[in-house]
Amino acid sequence: MPVNLTAPVAAQLLPVAGVSLGIAEAGIKRANRKDLLVIKLDDGATVAGVFTTNRFCAAPVTVAKEHLAAKNAVRALLVNTGNANAGTGEQGMSAARTACAELAKLLGCSPEQVLPYSTGVIMEPLPVDKIVAGMPQAIANLKVDNWYDAAHAIMTTDIVAKATSRQVQLGGKIVTITGISKGSGMIHPNMATMLGYIATDAKIAQPLLQEMVREAANQSFNCITVDGDTSTNDALMLIATGKSGVEINDADRAAMQAVITDVATELAQAIVRDGEGATKFITIQLEGGKDEAECKKIGYAIAHSPLVKTAFFASDPNLGRILAAIGYAGVTDLDVAKLKVYLDDVLVAENGGRAASYLEEDGQRVMQQSDITIRVVLGRGAVDATLWTCDFSYDYVKINASYRS
Amino acid sequence: MPVNLTAPVAAQLLPVAGVSLGIAEAGIKRANRKDLLVIKLDDGATVAGVFTTNRFCAAPVTVAKEHLAAKNAVRALLVNTGNANAGTGEQGMSAARTACAELAKLLGCSPEQVLPYSTGVIMEPLPVDKIVAGMPQAIANLKVDNWYDAAHAIMTTDIVAKATSRQVQLGGKIVTITGISKGSGMIHPNMATMLGYIATDAKIAQPLLQEMVREAANQSFNCITVDGDTSTNDALMLIATGKSGVEINDADRAAMQAVITDVATELAQAIVRDGEGATKFITIQLEGGKDEAECKKIGYAIAHSPLVKTAFFASDPNLGRILAAIGYAGVTDLDVAKLKVYLDDVLVAENGGRAASYLEEDGQRVMQQSDITIRVVLGRGAVDATLWTCDFSYDYVKINASYRS
Repeated sequence: MPVNLTAPVAAQLLPVAGVSLGIAEAGIKRANRKDLLVIKLDDGATVAGVFTTNRFCAAPVTVAKEHLAAKNAVRALLVNTGNANAGTGEQGMSAARTACAELAKLLGCSPEQVLPYSTGVIMEPLPVDKIVAGMPQAIANLKVDNWYDAAHAIMTTDIVAKATSRQVQLGGKIVTITGISKGSGMIHPNMATMLGYIATDAKIAQPLLQEMVREAANQSFNCITVDGDTSTNDALMLIATGKSGVEINDADRAAMQAVITDVATELAQAIVRDGEGATKFITIQLEGGKDEAECKKIGYAIAHSPLVKTAFFASDPNLGRILAAIGYAGVTDLDVAKLKVYLDDVLVAENGGRAASYLEEDGQRVMQQSDITIRVVLGRGAVDATLWTCDFSYDYVKINASYRS
Repeated sequence: MPVNLTAPVAAQLLPVAGVSLGIAEAGIKRANRKDLLVIKLDDGATVAGVFTTNRFCAAPVTVAKEHLAAKNAVRALLVNTGNANAGTGEQGMSAARTACAELAKLLGCSPEQVLPYSTGVIMEPLPVDKIVAGMPQAIANLKVDNWYDAAHAIMTTDIVAKATSRQVQLGGKIVTITGISKGSGMIHPNMATMLGYIATDAKIAQPLLQEMVREAANQSFNCITVDGDTSTNDALMLIATGKSGVEINDADRAAMQAVITDVATELAQAIVRDGEGATKFITIQLEGGKDEAECKKIGYAIAHSPLVKTAFFASDPNLGRILAAIGYAGVTDLDVAKLKVYLDDVLVAENGGRAASYLEEDGQRVMQQSDITIRVVLGRGAVDATLWTCDFSYDYVKINASYRS
């Protein structure tokens, strides 16, 4: 069950002028399931995105990157669940292009103005005919106050939909930001996440928008992991419609970046809170590292250790497993006698071993919580980093031993 | 349950002249459990070993390396289970030294002639008084035909003991090699394994012995993983007593290396077959890589993927997960259109997607087996590598959510 994650409330998701969303039940994998989303953009919107680094990246990732690079105005984003169109070779590329072309026909634009996204099972042919057949239903459903349904239409093994909104005053005017994401397993984004879409009515030039989406991803989706598996289909897209009349300039950039990163972080954390089988949400804070790379190495070693993750599932303060993970993280000149490990406010280890002040009952108290912070103070430098992960339960195995069937 | 792994038969484990073994129930973690092993060596034996690269390496690892480096004749190895003496700081170092000194007193040698080894829970003080109290019992039990009991005395979460023997004719005489190992979880050795001890009655000079144990480890224990967690206590030791009268020279070296590597490989594979919760034994063959590093990167990405491991547990040919793991392994110039993936004899993927000839029923047939080979033909060069791993089941979570209690 999701960890301290409440479902979004439809009325709290703010429309973003210039963006309309339409969903359909296209029957891609199963009948009677919302599995198709069209995001239509008005003239003048800019779009930027970051994508998976997986070499077996999906056909739609390749096509979306091509279409973005062509620098035509993007008119629509097309998202399907139920099939990842990854590991599908030339046939998959052809299916992704067909889907773009057919939606372009219906919307009166060129195929290059459509960006495609898919998520679901890998290495099965995309049923593009079903997607095309579902398009009119999605187009008929297009409306600006449709983020709630859109968040549901992109879910796969997600239990809770992920969506959030913010408003910020810039240049005397209100700017709105709304975003949605999906993801629950195969989560170890590397420059992006499973799927995330954030839109604002600010006006942001495309090169700046690209910088902002990368910065937001680095601080959010690139700091989470459920199972260490980097997906073939990750994408985080940022859309700026300009409809608010507020153009982001140097003076406003930091404020706008902060709110976009905040939205991205909430959406990224929601993915971990809804991680497959998760019962605990674990924040891993690395402090005093020499550089970000070594902080993340140690953080991910802890976050990916099945032994650490199962100990958290059991609420068992078997905390030597954290030390072992720190030790094998690959920081070869690490002096373990100099670091300190805390569980929330409890000092667990220092001087290369268990802290003299540590009491099992204190560790036990923190382990019972559903939100827990592991803090590793490295004492090597001035760089900090934070990652988020979840525990590893019977249900993770259950979900992934039966996902296809 | 262990996968196609039969328990050793006492009568098939051959004594190695010059090595005697004694066990005791020292009550280190629980009463009435064999948890202490003394391996006593006659004069003239040489000893070499490889150890964990974990920065949080256990106190006994540090002490054993120190004592080996001092180049005194090794007279005894002391092994305890129930406590890893890792993450125990200065107190742990002191405990390891005390144990060596006390055993040295009883055997009439110097403390530097004793090598200590521990395995069990991390970050708890070693009850060295119990170990010392158990020593006379172990010494009274010393005998040359005691490998079977020794293999049992070093088990922790192991279900089946691991031990094997070989004989080889060299220079017209018979040389005997017998080895034992333990390990089931926290298995991703890096230059060693949890614990492994191999002895031969050949005479092998120490520098050569060190080369041979490293070579054997690289081909065996360094090619296995259960959960990707590199232990704090890994050690593989190779002992040569010289009692057979056969001295290994350049002419015999390759033959002797082959049989030592063979013993090490059987012991290493036994650890995977007895991997915590394992129901499948998976061989991962990488062929046609540019170098060993990229072969192992791709192999370990597959072997560590929880999604791949749970699909094997479910006997579900959800083989796109293998492609995803290959894609994120970190080989950044990998051309996925050129590689082929086989499941045993079944061609699963080529040309960047599912093979045209692939039938789900063929994949399903292989997935039902308990021993399965994943073969990845990279088409990039002439280097091959093989790894061994197991699947990921409910029982892995169960074992590791309750190991301490």
